[in-house]
Amino acid sequence: MRHQYHPLGFEGSRIAQGFWRCHEWDMSVSERLDFILSCLDLGVTTFDHADIYGDYRCEGLFGEALAKKPAMRDKMEIVTKCGILLPSESRPDISVHRYDYRAKHIHESVDRSLANLQCDYIDTLLLHRPSPLMDADEVAQAFDLLFTLGKVKHFGVSNFTPAQFDLLQSRLDAPLIVNQIELSPLSLAPFEDGTLDHLQQHAVTPMAWSPLAGGELFRGNGDRIVRVKEVVSDIAKSMKVNFDQVVIAWLLRHPSGICPVMGSGKIERLASVCQAANIVLSDDDWFKIWITSQGHPVP
Amino acid sequence: MRHQYHPLGFEGSRIAQGFWRCHEWDMSVSERLDFILSCLDLGVTTFDHADIYGDYRCEGLFGEALAKKPAMRDKMEIVTKCGILLPSESRPDISVHRYDYRAKHIHESVDRSLANLQCDYIDTLLLHRPSPLMDADEVAQAFDLLFTLGKVKHFGVSNFTPAQFDLLQSRLDAPLIVNQIELSPLSLAPFEDGTLDHLQQHAVTPMAWSPLAGGELFRGNGDRIVRVKEVVSDIAKSMKVNFDQVVIAWLLRHPSGICPVMGSGKIERLASVCQAANIVLSDDDWFKIWITSQGHPVP
Amino acid sequence: MRHQYHPLGFEGSRIAQGFWRCHEWDMSVSERLDFILSCLDLGVTTFDHADIYGDYRCEGLFGEALAKKPAMRDKMEIVTKCGILLPSESRPDISVHRYDYRAKHIHESVDRSLANLQCDYIDTLLLHRPSPLMDADEVAQAFDLLFTLGKVKHFGVSNFTPAQFDLLQSRLDAPLIVNQIELSPLSLAPFEDGTLDHLQQHAVTPMAWSPLAGGELFRGNGDRIVRVKEVVSDIAKSMKVNFDQVVIAWLLRHPSGICPVMGSGKIERLASVCQAANIVLSDDDWFKIWITSQGHPVP
Repeated sequence: MRHQYHPLGFEGSRIAQGFWRCHEWDMSVSERLDFILSCLDLGVTTFDHADIYGDYRCEGLFGEALAKKPAMRDKMEIVTKCGILLPSESRPDISVHRYDYRAKHIHESVDRSLANLQCDYIDTLLLHRPSPLMDADEVAQAFDLLFTLGKVKHFGVSNFTPAQFDLLQSRLDAPLIVNQIELSPLSLAPFEDGTLDHLQQHAVTPMAWSPLAGGELFRGNGDRIVRVKEVVSDIAKSMKVNFDQVVIAWLLRHPSGICPVMGSGKIERLASVCQAANIVLSDDDWFKIWITSQGHPVP
Repeated sequence: MRHQYHPLGFEGSRIAQGFWRCHEWDMSVSERLDFILSCLDLGVTTFDHADIYGDYRCEGLFGEALAKKPAMRDKMEIVTKCGILLPSESRPDISVHRYDYRAKHIHESVDRSLANLQCDYIDTLLLHRPSPLMDADEVAQAFDLLFTLGKVKHFGVSNFTPAQFDLLQSRLDAPLIVNQIELSPLSLAPFEDGTLDHLQQHAVTPMAWSPLAGGELFRGNGDRIVRVKEVVSDIAKSMKVNFDQVVIAWLLRHPSGICPVMGSGKIERLASVCQAANIVLSDDDWFKIWITSQGHPVP
Repeated sequence: MRHQYHPLGFEGSRIAQGFWRCHEWDMSVSERLDFILSCLDLGVTTFDHADIYGDYRCEGLFGEALAKKPAMRDKMEIVTKCGILLPSESRPDISVHRYDYRAKHIHESVDRSLANLQCDYIDTLLLHRPSPLMDADEVAQAFDLLFTLGKVKHFGVSNFTPAQFDLLQSRLDAPLIVNQIELSPLSLAPFEDGTLDHLQQHAVTPMAWSPLAGGELFRGNGDRIVRVKEVVSDIAKSMKVNFDQVVIAWLLRHPSGICPVMGSGKIERLASVCQAANIVLSDDDWFKIWITSQGHPVP
């Protein structure tokens, strides 16, 4: 269940819990605190955030709970992100939905995240999306200062291509330790376009967002989705495990060391998914899902 | 207005003046001399050529003017290109429109360019197009000899992918200092396919050909063009600057240090564009153009 | 006719003979022996195999002939492949057509290949197809052991992208010396997508499978095929050589050092193709084929 996020990174949990929908969970502060404690009990210690989640509110909801029991901080790893500007009621200063990787914005965003999360450091800060205007040198300087000030321990990216990753890495002394990308049995591009090869080569952890395809695997009804759903269900039935577990075990089997970020607020679903680490999916079954999703046999 | 074309390259002007249409400008020799002097007065000292421009005639037109005032040579940087064979009346020896990067052709082309340009060195020689038959080792040897002979001071490429660039660079001691590619608010591919990331990583200057989209932004009437034209016009109006200036400022804002190559023979248009270096385009406006050209919000 | 497969690889023949259809050649053992001897007489000493060819039977057919004259072994270089699992009558243990690069499979596959080929070493072992489940570290360990045991002298891959190649290479001390890919006047992708640039940069030999486009150039009747067939025929006629020779000379001309793998069991066709090494295809003719296959002039 433990996972080393890069040789020079941190040790966290193989399964991470995300909070991008926690504003919809309808939990009181003490319920949120209970939820976080239950995660920790399950061994899920890596928590994924972004400044913008829930229209800039989710970090605060988490921080409110953390403040009730600050001793939890040492038992968890907090990942958060910066760089997207999202027009919203709470941010009337933002008029265009765009990116901002100027040093000023990165610093302000981290300071807001720390205030919202009610803690004094972030384990890993990710650049949320590649931006055509990202100045790698300016970002590198900002990272250096954030590290020196003790505000951020490690850095990573999200949704970056290998070329974008290499550019930023070329300006940094410390390695980027994470690239958080969309990965699921319905999102195969990074398996084939060099993204996962490149991360595996450099021992960078791929975190998977939408590992269950954002619900598409449950609610979707396109031909491809129906096919994949069926083969996953068949495997789940024959292994006597549940659907989520098969999907997550499928991601965990990949040699690049994918860490799925789960998004449900139901602790029993997370508990169930945590069992996926113990499921040994056969290579035959792995490829059945791969082939079904691709819609053709392997060449 | 000055720009360092690679740390080991030359210092030139941020805006370059191209001569690929100078055979259509209908200028006498002394008018051409005046035009060049006016460019220099504006601080535009980097002049872009290719052996084939104007059916192999443009370099000669420039050289004719330069010969009237040879002292100008030290105040300018000449970029020219080789490698395309273009069937034309003046070159009856060429029967197939193709590429040629054999050492023999490179040397002959440079000698012809020097003769036409009426000067004794080229600041930067570019390979005009990637060729499937380019032998990187043979090209490297030719470059070495041209450098040793003092005929060419620096080398670069044009329209090269990162893989093509890396192959050639791997055979050279000195760095390639330029990749001249098509870049404009209508040509976004290099912003996203790794080309600009790769150049920025290696501090190679992207020169932009057709920075105004070859007139498409003025005359075009496709949906996308009309949309982009409108948003650029609106920004120009609100900033009280002109259309060209907004487009060029948009390119200049990119962190890779794009140097646009202008193609008009009207000195007042060049003078106007030179003001773009002083225009501060807001990030909001930059992304409005980006988003409009892409046709969807940023993810 | 000799070719150095990578500076640290082996010396073999520029034209290789493949045995993927040898189960269809309908030859007795002594006919097969004669065929192999005739290949050697022609200077074709590099023989291409894979465990799965002919439903796992072709290696054995070759080995049967080799056993008749074991002294031939020192005069040839054997390339074979592993990693594809192919359901077939002879392998009832395989139920899903998929890949397997676990160390166990690689070792078992090599042992079977050695037994079938009736020899005690393989000159070069290739991974037949990239697999999403390939664990580069596990493969590297298997390669090390195979080398130490003297079972395999060199290693390479087949159908790998540059990113897949780099990942595996990053875990190996010795260089991968071959990437066997589909290349012909109808398969131009690797000329443009970086694959050949990357191989040329690292001095890795591209072996070409289906260099005659798997017969499409003879039997096909799509527009593009007909166009290419016509231009190749015209060139062959004017050079007084045959069709195959022009196609193979076209591949041999490329600076990356492409080694075509021929597949016919008719020795006279191989003999004819061997003459292609002596044909000097003009650059004009090379580009005529290129342009015709692309369907548009070079830019």
